Amino acid sequence: MKLATLRNGTRDGALVVVRRDGTRYAPATEIAPTLQRALDEWDAVEPALRAVADRLEHDQIESRPLDVAQLRAPLPRAYEWVDGSAYINHIVLVRKARGAQPPATLETDPLVYQGGSSDFLGPTDDIPLADVAWGCDFESEVCVILGDTPQGTTMEEAARHVRLLMLANDVTLRNLVPDELAKGFGFFGSKPATAFSPFAITPDELGDAWKDGRVHLRLRTWLDGRLVGDPEAGPEMHFSFYDLIAHVTKTRAFGAGTILGSGTVSNADPARGISCLAERRMREILDTGAPSTPFLTYGNRVEIEMSDASGRSLFGRIAQTVVPFEKRSDTRRTKV
Amino acid sequence: MKLATLRNGTRDGALVVVRRDGTRYAPATEIAPTLQRALDEWDAVEPALRAVADRLEHDQIESRPLDVAQLRAPLPRAYEWVDGSAYINHIVLVRKARGAQPPATLETDPLVYQGGSSDFLGPTDDIPLADVAWGCDFESEVCVILGDTPQGTTMEEAARHVRLLMLANDVTLRNLVPDELAKGFGFFGSKPATAFSPFAITPDELGDAWKDGRVHLRLRTWLDGRLVGDPEAGPEMHFSFYDLIAHVTKTRAFGAGTILGSGTVSNADPARGISCLAERRMREILDTGAPSTPFLTYGNRVEIEMSDASGRSLFGRIAQTVVPFEKRSDTRRTKV
Repeated sequence: MKLATLRNGTRDGALVVVRRDGTRYAPATEIAPTLQRALDEWDAVEPALRAVADRLEHDQIESRPLDVAQLRAPLPRAYEWVDGSAYINHIVLVRKARGAQPPATLETDPLVYQGGSSDFLGPTDDIPLADVAWGCDFESEVCVILGDTPQGTTMEEAARHVRLLMLANDVTLRNLVPDELAKGFGFFGSKPATAFSPFAITPDELGDAWKDGRVHLRLRTWLDGRLVGDPEAGPEMHFSFYDLIAHVTKTRAFGAGTILGSGTVSNADPARGISCLAERRMREILDTGAPSTPFLTYGNRVEIEMSDASGRSLFGRIAQTVVPFEKRSDTRRTKV
Repeated sequence: MKLATLRNGTRDGALVVVRRDGTRYAPATEIAPTLQRALDEWDAVEPALRAVADRLEHDQIESRPLDVAQLRAPLPRAYEWVDGSAYINHIVLVRKARGAQPPATLETDPLVYQGGSSDFLGPTDDIPLADVAWGCDFESEVCVILGDTPQGTTMEEAARHVRLLMLANDVTLRNLVPDELAKGFGFFGSKPATAFSPFAITPDELGDAWKDGRVHLRLRTWLDGRLVGDPEAGPEMHFSFYDLIAHVTKTRAFGAGTILGSGTVSNADPARGISCLAERRMREILDTGAPSTPFLTYGNRVEIEMSDASGRSLFGRIAQTVVPFEKRSDTRRTKV
């Protein structure tokens, strides 16, 4: 089942069920007004949502054409956004890029950070950038949305807490990272609002491609219309989502609607391209001594999508343009 | 006005208005079902909530006796929990304690970290601790709850975004901190669920004690019934809440209900005692070469409270006991 959140002038938008081909939707607000509410009461509402999805697939329910530009992030705000860094190739390359060593426990102890989660970007929202000198970069990722996940969840128990999957563009301000990490408290300002894919889908939509807590498909990224990366998201995800769930629940519980990210999808084979500019810049430094690829500037367009074996888009496409940030007094983007 | 959240078997509890003396309450669910909803629609609901508070104060409305044990955290879950470290004395002492240097930008660039926010502890909830070897510590703090706060908010604009204040016990697992910070991504597992005070209060409740984005009152902490600290929360807060707001909004916006903490309240004068055990242990190391104060263990009781000049408790009292963690299958504490 594919779920999405339609812009309706409220903070959390309106829950809709989307047809598998992504072109039509049926309202689901009578079952649950918002995706957060559906997650809060998942066991109670999932059967009714699946029934709508089934009727939608067989054209047995009134549906409307879907305009992706009217979609917010599936969760326009969430109670928790935890992002891992599960692709070791990315960690090694990016740390080289800033002259830092990978941690000694690289292969045994996952890296995760806690991101801001009160104000996400929708799949086609512009990326507002106040200063191009901050070094704006995209990071193409796969995410899961969790149901209630208790403290002490094991890898074996983890699967049952995964409710939905999404894609993310974890926008990063590279030039703010070194000073921030030097302070010792991790990322904060260097991680502005994250964007999510149009659709959040249940794991069964992935069929055999969802295996061992990994998505075994290629994640494609385009920059200004040109394909820049199509890495395999499965085999090189060193820590699976189940590993990450066991890791993050060591000392606390997570409430329904927690988003957990994979980190930048990255393959060791350079032919698979990039899911962030920092990796390309690092390869340029290794090849020529200096980076030649600039970070993002105004007008650059980033698109991120994942398709199944038959070429059908699973999550819809993230498609964002970098624009100058305009300060607005008390009015926030999410208030339509 | 004092607001609180009553346990009612739901994830977010029921909003109530509390009499200034903290002994009685009136339901507010007809105005806003939850505190988050009130914050979402603050301008619309504040007058009605203040009218209830006024009638409650003058005994002109039906009220019920308040049992603090029935209170959840004012926000049982929040979209964002950002904790600063605004008392420089604390940073210097704690870094000495783990043999680390304070950052070079100690006095010019605030330290903040992003905490987990999907599953807070209530003011009298036990602190579940899976392993005493993790080095469990309390941290007594002052917090503000923000309304919508745009990217690029200045210090001058910050005041208008502060809706409420609370106290927090930012529980920290000290012995997990060094390995975690060594990985470079900041705190995660070393910061389990945070607890908040019974009441969230509007800034006007503080009168003259709320000045320049600081609370000019003493924050008292008791361990097993013995007063261990009563530092002044005002003068040594190097970065005010307004400084912290300007700092955190540099690259992104924050939605209504974001909680922003001061960090451990700490005075340079040792006579003012401690708001966390790590500081006492550091002083012991400096005096005798080794710490003699153990971290918290099962049965230890931590209480945190702040009173106004007349001795009246402003936020009610956080009163928590450390207990062994018991894993429960899918049932979480917040589901009653």
